[in-house]
Amino acid sequence: MSGPVGDFGLIGLAVMGQNLILNAADNGFTVVAFNRTVSKVDHFLENEAKGKSIVGAHSIEEFCSKLKSPRRIMLLVMAGKPVDDFIETLLPHLEKGDIIIDGGNSHFPDTTRRTKYLDTKGIRFVGSGVSGGEEGARYGPSLMPGGNEEAWPFIKDVFQSIAAKSDGEPCCEWVGDEGAGHYVKMVHNGIEYGDMQLICEAYDIMKRALGMSNKEIGDVFTTWNKGVLDSFLIEITRDIMYFNDETDGQPLLEKILDSAGQKGTGKWTAINALDLGMPVTLIAESVLARCLSSIKGERTRASEKLQFVGRSTKFEGNKEQFLADLEQALYASKIISYAQGFMLMQEAAKEYKWKLNKPSIALMWRGGCIIRSVFLKDITDAYRTNPDLENLLFSDFFNKAIHTAQPGWRDVVSKTALLGIPTPCFSTALSWFDGYRTKDLPANLLQAQRDYFGAHTFKMKPEAANEKYPADTNIHVNWTGRGGNVSASTYQA
Amino acid sequence: MSGPVGDFGLIGLAVMGQNLILNAADNGFTVVAFNRTVSKVDHFLENEAKGKSIVGAHSIEEFCSKLKSPRRIMLLVMAGKPVDDFIETLLPHLEKGDIIIDGGNSHFPDTTRRTKYLDTKGIRFVGSGVSGGEEGARYGPSLMPGGNEEAWPFIKDVFQSIAAKSDGEPCCEWVGDEGAGHYVKMVHNGIEYGDMQLICEAYDIMKRALGMSNKEIGDVFTTWNKGVLDSFLIEITRDIMYFNDETDGQPLLEKILDSAGQKGTGKWTAINALDLGMPVTLIAESVLARCLSSIKGERTRASEKLQFVGRSTKFEGNKEQFLADLEQALYASKIISYAQGFMLMQEAAKEYKWKLNKPSIALMWRGGCIIRSVFLKDITDAYRTNPDLENLLFSDFFNKAIHTAQPGWRDVVSKTALLGIPTPCFSTALSWFDGYRTKDLPANLLQAQRDYFGAHTFKMKPEAANEKYPADTNIHVNWTGRGGNVSASTYQA
Repeated sequence: MSGPVGDFGLIGLAVMGQNLILNAADNGFTVVAFNRTVSKVDHFLENEAKGKSIVGAHSIEEFCSKLKSPRRIMLLVMAGKPVDDFIETLLPHLEKGDIIIDGGNSHFPDTTRRTKYLDTKGIRFVGSGVSGGEEGARYGPSLMPGGNEEAWPFIKDVFQSIAAKSDGEPCCEWVGDEGAGHYVKMVHNGIEYGDMQLICEAYDIMKRALGMSNKEIGDVFTTWNKGVLDSFLIEITRDIMYFNDETDGQPLLEKILDSAGQKGTGKWTAINALDLGMPVTLIAESVLARCLSSIKGERTRASEKLQFVGRSTKFEGNKEQFLADLEQALYASKIISYAQGFMLMQEAAKEYKWKLNKPSIALMWRGGCIIRSVFLKDITDAYRTNPDLENLLFSDFFNKAIHTAQPGWRDVVSKTALLGIPTPCFSTALSWFDGYRTKDLPANLLQAQRDYFGAHTFKMKPEAANEKYPADTNIHVNWTGRGGNVSASTYQA
Repeated sequence: MSGPVGDFGLIGLAVMGQNLILNAADNGFTVVAFNRTVSKVDHFLENEAKGKSIVGAHSIEEFCSKLKSPRRIMLLVMAGKPVDDFIETLLPHLEKGDIIIDGGNSHFPDTTRRTKYLDTKGIRFVGSGVSGGEEGARYGPSLMPGGNEEAWPFIKDVFQSIAAKSDGEPCCEWVGDEGAGHYVKMVHNGIEYGDMQLICEAYDIMKRALGMSNKEIGDVFTTWNKGVLDSFLIEITRDIMYFNDETDGQPLLEKILDSAGQKGTGKWTAINALDLGMPVTLIAESVLARCLSSIKGERTRASEKLQFVGRSTKFEGNKEQFLADLEQALYASKIISYAQGFMLMQEAAKEYKWKLNKPSIALMWRGGCIIRSVFLKDITDAYRTNPDLENLLFSDFFNKAIHTAQPGWRDVVSKTALLGIPTPCFSTALSWFDGYRTKDLPANLLQAQRDYFGAHTFKMKPEAANEKYPADTNIHVNWTGRGGNVSASTYQA
């Protein structure tokens, strides 16, 4: 077969790439496949791709020549330099108006840079988040495209047909300019880090505080998966709890090394939150929890040197009640995490001047991706009802949910602190919630301290201002009677 | 007065600069002062500097001509571009071997860059952390110099004489190459953020959980300042609690706006910790707590929409016991924060190939700076006893301290969770401690999940490996029976 027969081209035949190609072929598109290691192309054609509308290419020239115009080329290669390299390799073989789509987990500033760069070459660049893992890629991923909006009309058909569907709606919409698509995917991954850590904490509590077996824990996740927590991650956790090592019939999970890896997207989210000054505590804690898990050697030595000391040593109370509380603690913490995530995206939209459509972001995450859940339908509804919602917690639905969840959530955090079981994310979520709903935080003391030692000045609470200490004024007080009244302008504490 | 009379030159006459000059003059050095806005020079000479060995300059030429060789020039200007600009302005008037010292809060990568750049010009560059605020600068700051080590013999006398003394030892030693000095200052500031937030949480708990008055709270800090918490920050907090607004005799603190500012060094520490993959949770939470405090408007609206719901509504138990527990909670959390900070510096030394002298870092922080405390003497001792100490918590002293503190610490975190008072740093410290001392964390589930949805593979616990699931091997399990056995190489979750 030769000549421009391909509707869609994909470069990078690792698991995600292969599955996306098979997915597109199943949806009636003729796909041209290429891989740097060309032998992979033949192997793919002779096996998984056999008998499908999939064409192979053994060179970039051949690859480009086999694509209809405007070319729609998707890269699924390692984020970073490989993307730039492939772009340069492709450029000589492209025509104005062709479209390059980066479907890897690129960092959003790179996508912004590439969009601008390729625009000068007349090439339309799209950076698209792709979530759902190998399963999602194969049967319907969540797609979050952003970049050069001119490209959208040309890729909409492929993207929305291969994407997951939720109540008939494709989990794919145009996200926004420049790096917006990869930004939203980054936050998605950060939220995913949080969801996973929260589930780990629930499992740890059932295992160590309640002494439950994996089978019993699996049964709890089975029940939870029928309620407000109904989601892909709860479902796979249930499967994992039930999965045994055939060798001895014991749960495989308990034999897996507790040293978590990460590829950086969660870290990027936490760093971006710090850069934008947004209090996204749950994602930050979940990333740091992975860091703590990864120093297994030091933890093992610490476990011999640092013993538990406390006034209560074993769980007391009603186990059934506690399990109900635990479900509420997980649910409430999850609500906080998503509220924080949307606060971050809202701030990013301001900062980077992107239009972000909150209801469609929630919808994109509704199906196909790792964090897909019933929960995201409720978020979609909340934002569809009121797109200008200041905070998720202000919607009737989540406002009611968080109030219902509070008592159990508090008991879980309280009891685990007494029992010595770490709950970094349950705890930070509760502290954040209690801080967020507090009109007067103790940061007034912090401002007083900064003025005391660094002459950083402070402002008055408007309602408390007076002639000596007026409102909207930077005030420096000579707290000690010693020192000057000069205000700091270079010292930074 | 003309000709090279100056031992030391300083540029930047804001409060820190003025006070450092006065400090150096008191120590017998003739100091040449310059400021971009020259009027400030004259004003300074006619007032604070009057009758001291301080000479003014009205141009960079004059400034440099008045300094003995090798010139020792300290910049105390805004971090960032102003530093680079002054360096360029100075260069034409300098000779090989002259020394430029940046005493501002520059970001350590900039200091590394400047050290290398000026080395090519034959100029010795030093980036020095300066802590202690206006008081410290005037009467003895903590100084943390790093950069081009050739400069040290020439600045040691000035630096060690103006620096604070602790038990006769100057709180100033050479830190290390390149940006090491500013790096250590950055971590110092991060730890400072943590210490301040911890004190704020203690104040908030006494105020809201125990309903204590500022006077009563001040009395508690007075007592604490005589014990293990004896420190500058506790001391100034005591003063702040007692400080009243003359207008009505009410505590000024309660009228100060609870919206915390920051200049970024705490943020830099948290971001660096994420970059190096170190679980520095307490500093991260303290930075994010400032972010939360700064969205006062949204918090105020949230305070009307989000009510407290819990099973206990008021503090129950013995108040005296709880105050003792609170002291232990603050002490234990502080130990965790410093343990995390030293873990970070240890990792940074590896990453950036710096020699960092842990005992002398602790000593530098022992006096002069904002975080000076009795506590830092104990840290100095711990590292002097065993410089290769893997973790601060492994030293006999802190090991004993953390075990003693645990029961009260747990009760404080537990009770505040029930009462709805936010304790982001007390809580994260406890969760971190309980995670750190845990041999088997639930991260095994996280690895199983990642392999389930992303084919990321996992490793076995060595003791649990078998023929089917061998040790030290990346294992991918087909958890569902569906999907392939391909391992992910591009998809990143």
